[in-house]
Amino acid sequence: MAFKVGLLGVGTVGTGTAQILLNPEGRQPLLQEIEIHRVGVRSLDKPREVQLPPELMTTDLESIVTDPAVDIVVEVLGGLEPARSLILKAITQGKHVVTANKAVISRYGAEIFTAAEEAGVYVLLEAAVGGGIPVIQPLKQSLGVNRIQSVIGIVNGTTNYILTRMQTEGGEFSDILADAQSLGYAEADPTADVDGLDAADKIAILASLAFAGRIKLDDVYCEGIRQVSAADISYAQKLGFVIKLLAFAKREELAATAPPDADLLQVRVHPTLLPKTHPLASINGVYNAILVEGDPIGQVVFSGPGAGSGPTASAVVSDILNIAAVLKTAGESHRLHPLLSCAHQHYCAIAPMSELVTRFYARFLTKDCPGVIGHLGTSFGNHHVSLESIVQTGFRDDLAEIVVVTHDVREGNFRQALDEIRTLEAVDSIPSILRVL
Amino acid sequence: MAFKVGLLGVGTVGTGTAQILLNPEGRQPLLQEIEIHRVGVRSLDKPREVQLPPELMTTDLESIVTDPAVDIVVEVLGGLEPARSLILKAITQGKHVVTANKAVISRYGAEIFTAAEEAGVYVLLEAAVGGGIPVIQPLKQSLGVNRIQSVIGIVNGTTNYILTRMQTEGGEFSDILADAQSLGYAEADPTADVDGLDAADKIAILASLAFAGRIKLDDVYCEGIRQVSAADISYAQKLGFVIKLLAFAKREELAATAPPDADLLQVRVHPTLLPKTHPLASINGVYNAILVEGDPIGQVVFSGPGAGSGPTASAVVSDILNIAAVLKTAGESHRLHPLLSCAHQHYCAIAPMSELVTRFYARFLTKDCPGVIGHLGTSFGNHHVSLESIVQTGFRDDLAEIVVVTHDVREGNFRQALDEIRTLEAVDSIPSILRVL
Repeated sequence: MAFKVGLLGVGTVGTGTAQILLNPEGRQPLLQEIEIHRVGVRSLDKPREVQLPPELMTTDLESIVTDPAVDIVVEVLGGLEPARSLILKAITQGKHVVTANKAVISRYGAEIFTAAEEAGVYVLLEAAVGGGIPVIQPLKQSLGVNRIQSVIGIVNGTTNYILTRMQTEGGEFSDILADAQSLGYAEADPTADVDGLDAADKIAILASLAFAGRIKLDDVYCEGIRQVSAADISYAQKLGFVIKLLAFAKREELAATAPPDADLLQVRVHPTLLPKTHPLASINGVYNAILVEGDPIGQVVFSGPGAGSGPTASAVVSDILNIAAVLKTAGESHRLHPLLSCAHQHYCAIAPMSELVTRFYARFLTKDCPGVIGHLGTSFGNHHVSLESIVQTGFRDDLAEIVVVTHDVREGNFRQALDEIRTLEAVDSIPSILRVL
Repeated sequence: MAFKVGLLGVGTVGTGTAQILLNPEGRQPLLQEIEIHRVGVRSLDKPREVQLPPELMTTDLESIVTDPAVDIVVEVLGGLEPARSLILKAITQGKHVVTANKAVISRYGAEIFTAAEEAGVYVLLEAAVGGGIPVIQPLKQSLGVNRIQSVIGIVNGTTNYILTRMQTEGGEFSDILADAQSLGYAEADPTADVDGLDAADKIAILASLAFAGRIKLDDVYCEGIRQVSAADISYAQKLGFVIKLLAFAKREELAATAPPDADLLQVRVHPTLLPKTHPLASINGVYNAILVEGDPIGQVVFSGPGAGSGPTASAVVSDILNIAAVLKTAGESHRLHPLLSCAHQHYCAIAPMSELVTRFYARFLTKDCPGVIGHLGTSFGNHHVSLESIVQTGFRDDLAEIVVVTHDVREGNFRQALDEIRTLEAVDSIPSILRVL
């Protein structure tokens, strides 16, 4: 018995997927029982890097998800539509689904997994987060025996590449972005990457798995790297930090006065000053890494290539293989594997950012007049913001540059202090506000 | 239906295992269907950190593996016997086995997995390598679609702790070993750790999984860290390296003249000079990490706590959970999950160390007379050993100290050159010979 795959899309990931499936030698033997039955593309004439038999190809994508012979639909089209509709139709046709589509899963996961539960099929998505790095499956299978406390990830390769180059070369964001675009490391429209939206999709998915509940994507706080400047990277370095775009999903550490609610989460994406000794600080370039902390395991880190044809295809095909293996094991029993299916019913409560307790780094430009540091210190004190350091680092365009690092503070208090500081006559601007891990 | 566990051993790992199983709240819900049915211990009177109902306890270990009600036997006794015999008896009684016992699996894996295949049961061993780090299951499930090229690991926490302290403090091996023993990071008899035997057990297991064949433990080359001195660590640092005890399993890169044999492997454990920028170079203290390189995934790294009650128990319980999940899925079908079972039949061919092609670092003590460097260079040249650098680094006890780093050379040639060098009158000794990655 062979398992028949309907492949939707032969772009970067689809090409890599087909290359593995067409060359199973030297890999897990079960791969030889998986065959590409139909392939859906937008254009039949486009030249491709992988040789697919022409009789398998069609531009009628819907005919693939309704083909009675197809067991597993592999959606690697990207984008929201028609990907979402095709996934849902495949599910109602009783087909298992493998997808690399973080955008669809993070937005329509509830709808998709509800449909999958009803239809008794699997929807697997290892490739949606971390490219080739096995992280979804370990979260579901190996780490599920832990009480997860946090998942912290570098999950966007483009921004990590830009920040790494800013750090090693001392360049400004816009110059390095332009160069990254010309080298193919950033897209012509870089918004999804540099504004943190892609990372938000991914951390929403990881949070859902780690904390066994649904996440509303709108609840994920998201801040990109456009405001990070060469000056910040240089000051951070002097203070013993590197700046990374981190995605966080954590159980909220509640203040003693807060009502007890074990399910309150923080889910957020923002550039972060990270101590140089932190396990994620040495993840550079396009590499991704995900740190999972749980009880009793402690901290484990998964790292590797976060994108690319081969790595992402490895994740896609591992999902296909896992479905085939489970179907073989189940035989006629039609029971779903309890660790591979997904039956979350409730939505997780996400704490508002104003309640976050964290350290901050802020850079101020002020007039060069006596007493400015005193004014800043007083305003922070008025709002219970305790400072670790406040240093005039030099001058920039005739303005004094002052860098402040706080102790742990409530974000709401810090923002109120900044509102007060903005009204001070001596303060010109606050070019950077970054959180510190 | 609950799954009944027979727990053999309540030491460090057994205690952690029982603690998770007795407190399933907040973890994967399937854990609530797993219950501890019997617990085997050496002494009923010993005080324990975990409260187990006295009626479950017995000193008759064999009665547990033959108890008809037990579904899964968890062997966390350690040591070769009675662990091996109890595992085999459990298998013949039709019970699934979870073990943390790298020594038994690396020596008796062939016997145990043959018996398991015949009996139609699972033998899982996530906890045998890398403590809590999920690496066995990713190798079996997520990475199996790749053609694995190499597995390189820091898989022994004790030696990594000692080497890390030697590097940060500049101390000598014997002093830091003694301190590590007093702090509980090294055992009273440190042989298994510091001589690389524990790492050899683990890389034999990883090699078997990565390359889908059996490994004879005697074929694994094994060299420990006793010969690594503070001087070597200091010179390595100046050259841009750190010294780590690495375990390697690689497909042999064959010389053009060698007969083609795709299955020829290198499996070896030895201290290694590792470039500071290598992903494993920043793994410090008792942490473990495993780097897997495959086609098309590229390099992925798994890191985390390599030992300890909680992390190792996390791995043990994840195996129990995976067996329970697969049994639920299979229902009455009695088919084994093809990615969790292990049916290797052939033994892998392991290349002799003399054929290894690698770079070397060697430190010589010589008489302080003119021409010594020339004599060394000539001897290396006689045996086709190409040098990258040869530097007199200073004096030690009235002897000149010379450090040599080679280009890639055949190990056999390098050893012949050393044999010739040892006969030179000016050469006093060769205190260190280390490989360079």
